[in-house]
Amino acid sequence: MTEFLTLLPPLKARAKLFEQLTFLPASEEIETTRGLNRVLVDPILAAHPLPSFPRSTVDGYALRAADTYGSSESIPAYLTIAGEVRMGTAPNFSLSAAHCALIYTGGMLPAGADAVMMMEHTQAVRDGEVEVLRSVAIGENVLQSGEDVSEGQQVFSAGTRLRPAEIGGLMALGVTRIRVARKPLVGIISSGDEVVPPESDLNPGQVRDINSYTLSALVEQTGGQPVRYGIVPDEIEIFRNAANRALTECDLIIITAGSSASTRDLTARVIDELGEPGVLVHGVNLRPGKPTILAACATQARVKAVIGLPGNPVSALVVARIFVVPVLERLLGLENLKPEPQVQARLSINLASQAGREDWVPVRILPSPTGFQADPVFGKSNLIFTLARADGFVRIPPDATGLSAGEQVEVLLL
Amino acid sequence: MTEFLTLLPPLKARAKLFEQLTFLPASEEIETTRGLNRVLVDPILAAHPLPSFPRSTVDGYALRAADTYGSSESIPAYLTIAGEVRMGTAPNFSLSAAHCALIYTGGMLPAGADAVMMMEHTQAVRDGEVEVLRSVAIGENVLQSGEDVSEGQQVFSAGTRLRPAEIGGLMALGVTRIRVARKPLVGIISSGDEVVPPESDLNPGQVRDINSYTLSALVEQTGGQPVRYGIVPDEIEIFRNAANRALTECDLIIITAGSSASTRDLTARVIDELGEPGVLVHGVNLRPGKPTILAACATQARVKAVIGLPGNPVSALVVARIFVVPVLERLLGLENLKPEPQVQARLSINLASQAGREDWVPVRILPSPTGFQADPVFGKSNLIFTLARADGFVRIPPDATGLSAGEQVEVLLL
Repeated sequence: MTEFLTLLPPLKARAKLFEQLTFLPASEEIETTRGLNRVLVDPILAAHPLPSFPRSTVDGYALRAADTYGSSESIPAYLTIAGEVRMGTAPNFSLSAAHCALIYTGGMLPAGADAVMMMEHTQAVRDGEVEVLRSVAIGENVLQSGEDVSEGQQVFSAGTRLRPAEIGGLMALGVTRIRVARKPLVGIISSGDEVVPPESDLNPGQVRDINSYTLSALVEQTGGQPVRYGIVPDEIEIFRNAANRALTECDLIIITAGSSASTRDLTARVIDELGEPGVLVHGVNLRPGKPTILAACATQARVKAVIGLPGNPVSALVVARIFVVPVLERLLGLENLKPEPQVQARLSINLASQAGREDWVPVRILPSPTGFQADPVFGKSNLIFTLARADGFVRIPPDATGLSAGEQVEVLLL
Repeated sequence: MTEFLTLLPPLKARAKLFEQLTFLPASEEIETTRGLNRVLVDPILAAHPLPSFPRSTVDGYALRAADTYGSSESIPAYLTIAGEVRMGTAPNFSLSAAHCALIYTGGMLPAGADAVMMMEHTQAVRDGEVEVLRSVAIGENVLQSGEDVSEGQQVFSAGTRLRPAEIGGLMALGVTRIRVARKPLVGIISSGDEVVPPESDLNPGQVRDINSYTLSALVEQTGGQPVRYGIVPDEIEIFRNAANRALTECDLIIITAGSSASTRDLTARVIDELGEPGVLVHGVNLRPGKPTILAACATQARVKAVIGLPGNPVSALVVARIFVVPVLERLLGLENLKPEPQVQARLSINLASQAGREDWVPVRILPSPTGFQADPVFGKSNLIFTLARADGFVRIPPDATGLSAGEQVEVLLL
């Protein structure tokens, strides 16, 4: 009972951490072709309008709209063909009254033209002349210069993450080099005397380091650069040295505790002594993930987040998504965070949860006749293959006491 | 009318392409640490069980369950402490009756022990002896060897894409090198006399190449390796040479047509002559994306897909998602394709669509008091910044004649 009164829910714990941190995104210049998923540090202004000239949106004849007024199949207008607009060039002629020019989709309107008549509404009569079988309005079938973007317009704000569409937009404006947030360095330390590197043969009592690698992959996925400091033994001096080195060299530090109580205590102590103000939160009302440690440690450069994760691999990934990813996003300077992609599914069974506690339950997504079904994957102690068998998590919010079978839920993809 | 009878809907067009293609995924060996988003080509079997030894799931005392039967706060059992299990080592002692050993979460059970009593249900009496205040069942607070994975069990099938959790699973088993699908090479050719490289200053009538770069980014995102062949002029010999080179060197070829009718015809002709059977589909009942060309061209190695995309950048990206991405996924050997991540939102306005035609409408996602709202981004002629302003697409299926304002829709994220 007391525990639920003292443990903070995840969002409050996160707010407590964030109010202590300082963010100063560093930047680097890269080629736009290498910009996928990077984050702009400067707003981008259009150096010229787009399109940069009036373009036809159809194949047909560029003309003066006034010359077509009143024309129809029965009373066509007759126009003289002044020339053909070659793609990629400015027409070397201009149109006078009762004249037109052959033009293709994307072609530049000659001076004097203010509309384009689609090919299918015209008819060739004799060489150099065409019948126009209907009327067009000024501007019809024309994309005006600046209609997509006007000169000087801000097309992207600082903090925009680049998807394929943004890379296309930059190229359209001739922006082939960009300044982006440097990938934040995320120091990752594993601890626990029972933990050995993955390439080791296991002696009885030993387990391989999993968290250094799942967390590296998550950091990479989010746009950071993992720096692994390896596995530190349960010895305070060595632990402290590794943590201090990581704090100096990196922008954010993650330490996964070994599974024993003594290692967890050691981790908390080392983190608290790293810098002021030290540990802010020790224990969060979250399952899995209760033994989370959130700390802010001042360095000469700035106040950095140090996050202590439970040693259990499932807990570590859940806690990393709730606390590490948002810090990384702030370090990247990301703005306008969009909703996380998810899949809607119907829960296959009832899930109970304690009021006040936030639960993350690994689920598989299975097709069913009525859409997708979310099937909880239960694994004693949340072993790593519990997660490898899951497609994502169903989140039971703190104010719910569970979810019912058949309920529509959102699955956060792994 | 006739058009809608002759144009195939996207799924049928795709099926027609797929039945002609042959897929032979090539592979390479990499370090597991570099495996994020790569696809396994071989199933992975567990070389040993996981956990590899019986582990305690709590801090407490390892003991024989039988020694605790009948014990309670009022009638405790007294056990002699035989030793302490050091983390990461096999205990160098075994337990006889009425004995126990101090053990931490993750510690290895000594021989003779079959359960663990949590610390909080014990009480120290004098040196070397402990009071046990309740009873435990055999196996309580113990993770048995093989409980997560048994020896020889297949943990991942071929065709699994690696997320952070899978990388963790591989590390847990000591699999530090893996064989993955080589990134399929995707040749990208742009055409159109009006198209110039992005680094060029624009002369009147010219536009910069956008599609080569949006498509490269999409290919990269999906797990392929883009190979850009640049912009070919509207000249059949040069065009044919570039297409032949791409067909020989790459696993999949994308050609974006210029916007004029003549370039589109040239593109179709070049593609059809590349190899047998040639063009299978010319025109799809899709908006945007009607002028799509789907072809299968035999080479000495195998039958490869050649996909002709409309020159319009929005159309090109939509068509690439519908046709290029699935071919790439097959080339990667991906199995068990999961539903695409999407965001649920309410449509802000009515959207009309022709029956029989599939429409993809770019939308922005905006927060609203009742959840997210999907706001269509209308842009004349689907210019690139229409997309850059959008968060994703709402798909209107062929059997619908539109969607109504307030309707719940799925937004496929860009």
